[in-house]
Amino acid sequence: MENSAGGLAPPPVIVLVRPQLGENIGKAARAMLNFGLVEMRLVAPRDGWPNPQAGPAASGADIVLERAQVYDSVADAIADCTHVYATTVRKRGVTKPVVTPEEAARAIHATAGRTAILFGPERSGLETDDVAIARAILTVPINPEFGSLNLAQAVILVAYEWSKGVALASPPTTEIDPPAPQEELDGMIAQLDRMLVDSNYFFPPHRAAVTRRTLRTLLTKPGWNALEVRTLRGVLSNLDRPRPPRA
Amino acid sequence: MENSAGGLAPPPVIVLVRPQLGENIGKAARAMLNFGLVEMRLVAPRDGWPNPQAGPAASGADIVLERAQVYDSVADAIADCTHVYATTVRKRGVTKPVVTPEEAARAIHATAGRTAILFGPERSGLETDDVAIARAILTVPINPEFGSLNLAQAVILVAYEWSKGVALASPPTTEIDPPAPQEELDGMIAQLDRMLVDSNYFFPPHRAAVTRRTLRTLLTKPGWNALEVRTLRGVLSNLDRPRPPRA
Repeated sequence: MENSAGGLAPPPVIVLVRPQLGENIGKAARAMLNFGLVEMRLVAPRDGWPNPQAGPAASGADIVLERAQVYDSVADAIADCTHVYATTVRKRGVTKPVVTPEEAARAIHATAGRTAILFGPERSGLETDDVAIARAILTVPINPEFGSLNLAQAVILVAYEWSKGVALASPPTTEIDPPAPQEELDGMIAQLDRMLVDSNYFFPPHRAAVTRRTLRTLLTKPGWNALEVRTLRGVLSNLDRPRPPRA
Repeated sequence: MENSAGGLAPPPVIVLVRPQLGENIGKAARAMLNFGLVEMRLVAPRDGWPNPQAGPAASGADIVLERAQVYDSVADAIADCTHVYATTVRKRGVTKPVVTPEEAARAIHATAGRTAILFGPERSGLETDDVAIARAILTVPINPEFGSLNLAQAVILVAYEWSKGVALASPPTTEIDPPAPQEELDGMIAQLDRMLVDSNYFFPPHRAAVTRRTLRTLLTKPGWNALEVRTLRGVLSNLDRPRPPRA
């Protein structure tokens, strides 16, 4: 679907990560289509796909369900996206920028790249590893004494804010160098990871997961463009060649 | 509940006119409390009040249901209000101002009087006579090809917009560490540079200055904090140790 403002920014992709109930997938589809979003991606839906509970709950938003694509991992689902937001209800102990739906919507309209917005499973929300993949955290500012936003409600608020920018029809400012697609960044991180495994960087082993997350976070932060990622891969390849000990 | 922004305007009253299902009353209560609204009024609820279906659907927003007052007519329900909005999905042939949730929220915060927002029955929406009582029509701008907003979703969008104007709803401010002092970044760049010289990265030599500038630019872009720079220096030191060629 084209951005009806005629702008460069494509509408965001809504990624439901390990959704549990088909009914909630349907409700999320309905919420999306109300505000003009049609691209849904599903990462490992608990009850498989298609899910017979989704259709009735979508109340006519069948086009969203029919087009929904299923992926095994978050990385696969967002491989073609240059901007990734992780939606969380509460701020976590992660050092990433936190934005409101309004701020995210503005940023999405202002970029030339494709944006993915991750939503976690109904009960538990996104896991730390899912959040680590994102460049920023999207949080709906909510009553601190009663935060009880369900999946479809979180989706509708994000879609609603996005739709405001479409109506305004303001041409997005062209970003000359959007961040590289996620899969290119992932390629670089994998290359570095291989080198660090070879050089016994991940020690002690029980700290490896946390260390990997730390590295991913700080390498995600820059938003390097494709050329920059290529340059860094060249640096890594160069450092990966066996060298004699320095004199 | 006081407007915690300390402003004059009290929070709006949510008036459900002839609501049908108790479940939807509960969902509306939940939507309200998520964004700090607690005063609900019910006009002639179809199945009477209290309704046993409402509680479970409120997911803990019991305070809203307990305080809900029941009225026979819209006129009675809004007798103490100075501003009345009628929520409709589509603009009707009524000569009244039509505002978005955003515009309504701004107006509510800017007035000293009490505001009521009317929502109609699930199936049919507000009748012309209900709309006639209102000073303005509140309409959520929606996908013209798929308008399928349920009662709780309409309530949540209105409550969400109102909450933006309240201090307590301001997004959590993340303490993101400031970038490391320049000399720490320079130290890291110098360390990498030494490694790259050793591995003959800068080739051909006459391109070295440009290549160095490119690397500096992309390593400056992230604005890594002191801890991140230290982490990366650890990575570099690790990679700098002589290793056997990979099998």
